[in-house]
Amino acid sequence: MKIKNAEILCVGTELLLGEVVNTNTAFLGRELARLGISVYRTAVVGDNSSRLSDAISEAMANADLVILTGGLGPTYDDLTKETVASLLGLPMVRDAEILREIEGHFASMGQKMTENNAKQADIPLHSIALPNETGTAPGIYVEKDSKVLVLLPGPPFENKPMFEKYVAPRLRLCSDATLVSHNLHLMGISESEAETRLIDLMRSSENPTLAPYAKEGEVRLRITASAPSEEMGEKMCRELMDAVYASSVGEFIYAVNCDEPEALVIREMAARSLTLAVAESCTGGYLGKRLTDVPGASAVFLGGAITYSNEMKMKMLGVSAETLEKHSAVSEQTAKEMARGVRELTGADIGVSVTGEAGPSCETQNPAGTVFIGISSADGESAVRLTVSSRRPREYVRKVATSRALREIIDFLRKK
Amino acid sequence: MKIKNAEILCVGTELLLGEVVNTNTAFLGRELARLGISVYRTAVVGDNSSRLSDAISEAMANADLVILTGGLGPTYDDLTKETVASLLGLPMVRDAEILREIEGHFASMGQKMTENNAKQADIPLHSIALPNETGTAPGIYVEKDSKVLVLLPGPPFENKPMFEKYVAPRLRLCSDATLVSHNLHLMGISESEAETRLIDLMRSSENPTLAPYAKEGEVRLRITASAPSEEMGEKMCRELMDAVYASSVGEFIYAVNCDEPEALVIREMAARSLTLAVAESCTGGYLGKRLTDVPGASAVFLGGAITYSNEMKMKMLGVSAETLEKHSAVSEQTAKEMARGVRELTGADIGVSVTGEAGPSCETQNPAGTVFIGISSADGESAVRLTVSSRRPREYVRKVATSRALREIIDFLRKK
Repeated sequence: MKIKNAEILCVGTELLLGEVVNTNTAFLGRELARLGISVYRTAVVGDNSSRLSDAISEAMANADLVILTGGLGPTYDDLTKETVASLLGLPMVRDAEILREIEGHFASMGQKMTENNAKQADIPLHSIALPNETGTAPGIYVEKDSKVLVLLPGPPFENKPMFEKYVAPRLRLCSDATLVSHNLHLMGISESEAETRLIDLMRSSENPTLAPYAKEGEVRLRITASAPSEEMGEKMCRELMDAVYASSVGEFIYAVNCDEPEALVIREMAARSLTLAVAESCTGGYLGKRLTDVPGASAVFLGGAITYSNEMKMKMLGVSAETLEKHSAVSEQTAKEMARGVRELTGADIGVSVTGEAGPSCETQNPAGTVFIGISSADGESAVRLTVSSRRPREYVRKVATSRALREIIDFLRKK
Repeated sequence: MKIKNAEILCVGTELLLGEVVNTNTAFLGRELARLGISVYRTAVVGDNSSRLSDAISEAMANADLVILTGGLGPTYDDLTKETVASLLGLPMVRDAEILREIEGHFASMGQKMTENNAKQADIPLHSIALPNETGTAPGIYVEKDSKVLVLLPGPPFENKPMFEKYVAPRLRLCSDATLVSHNLHLMGISESEAETRLIDLMRSSENPTLAPYAKEGEVRLRITASAPSEEMGEKMCRELMDAVYASSVGEFIYAVNCDEPEALVIREMAARSLTLAVAESCTGGYLGKRLTDVPGASAVFLGGAITYSNEMKMKMLGVSAETLEKHSAVSEQTAKEMARGVRELTGADIGVSVTGEAGPSCETQNPAGTVFIGISSADGESAVRLTVSSRRPREYVRKVATSRALREIIDFLRKK
């Protein structure tokens, strides 16, 4: 059986009402692209059996594969399984093994299973139950009339591992083409400027394709080839990547295929056996949070100081009252003293600091969006100024400030 | 003109490929619900003019209002405006005022505007341009054949303020019904347990409706009334809320209509003129990050220590070597000493600490998912243990740990 294209249907009134942000579509879209399965459309529908049934029929008419997420839980508005079973004309059966697993899950937390949870062990006849190793509701894989339906739980930390372990291997057997995709990460150039410089290359490349897109504080170029084999796809991408490197945007590329810069920092510092500490003002712990998102961060990251007030900057990091008075808390000088202070406090090889005006109101003479990043090592201190447009909101400034700090660490390591 | 229902279409191949998570649908869904406009379906389509055109036609057939997001940018794969204009049979015209604004935006960052950016000043004839105060591409509001189309930029920090300021007031004039919605926030009870206790109330309530849903570490109950006036809707919700408070889940309600617990902490502490400091181990700055997400956090939040290693816990917070040896870093005793340490270090009224095993690997004897939260005040120290199922991944444990810490602060303030 061959699968060329798919539609993704996310089920849940909470998604339509905006109470939960839908991250499953992005994850599944990425995974399906890797498998060479095209997704032309995705949709969200509410917890309403007749509308859901219509949406599934429509998706089955358009695509070889329909992936549904959500609505597998224990409560009575969870309807996905029942709706699919009824649409395909299959009765529901209770799976004793899954029931035992669900009971075990509750026991591991010292809780008793309520009766509505048992409903999660019901699956349509002739379908395959997909184990849920991070939650309770199992997934379902069912084939009917040359179409494949896959039902996955809504919570991303259940959806993701189940797809990777139990769905992707099955789909890989059904896919002909292989899509190979690479991302070039750029900093210091805008999306529109990158396009202006690459427009001829973009227009002349149909396979692989070349597309720029902007993410907070950085620009990425996506190169995607559709090929009969992975090896061939890699070769096609490699040629286009070489052309991009040789162009006038080449100098702005700082990484290739790096999901998040924090992972790159941890990996590169661990490889050099260096330790890191942070001193954060306007980001209030955000940089430390991003670094410790990475499993294994403890090999590199010692910790640091969150010095939101001026008094804390002096007390914890030894920033001088004179510096704060003369240059203000948002200055190159303060950034340097913070970075040095945290390095001395923790004994880390590298100290990095962030101090700025995240907005909306400002406590120094600087406009909102002004941020200084400091780096301290045994060789001394340096600092750079980052100017984010004052039209950008607080969360944007904070995110970009942490991204830029991570990038400064990467640059520092490479220059050494 | 009356608007009863809407469809949301998000445009962008990057959304289908999963390179960007779609947060606009959630935001718009929430806002439309508040306006009493029902959304039965939302979809994502790629940067392909003919497929986009089909999706718009289909949405216009189903709904009074179609909101499109994305594809308004400067690059040549941004097609939304052109596709809508062509579908509605309207020519494009260049708006001189918008052009001046775009030039000003680049000038404010000391950059020159590239030619492709000028394209953003083109709008379909007879449409209204919606100013973009946080970016460059303007939005578009256009009426045709008793249908309304609204085109908004893709980046959330542009989309959101534009909708709030320039779209919502227009839609408010077109909506008959008013949806009034309230959220009750629960902690210490599972979603299925809450449902078991409320099932009779849920089944007997059609308007307002009562629906539980789970969010990392907490459960919410959503009460939604559809009424001819806001006053009437409020009254209907109030009655159902009273019934929930009087039920056996009443004792688990800790807040009403509080978007995020961090905002509640900052507000309640500011009202009491109290200051706060954090000591974070497994969360690595995440708690500080969440607290400083709140504008005006500086009135309450002084800062704190990120002590990822044991050495830092001793050096920065004065946790005793004996405690770490005897009880380990993940223990009630360590949590208490960390909280006391950071309170003494910073002079804050309240010190709160988080130490635990986020996984996947563990550095103490505790299983992954074990977290201790400590609170220190002039009255002394206390600590609680949080057990997250060891099946949950690192990011879940860290998020729940910070949510629980925020909840402990709220409880502490209320008990005082």
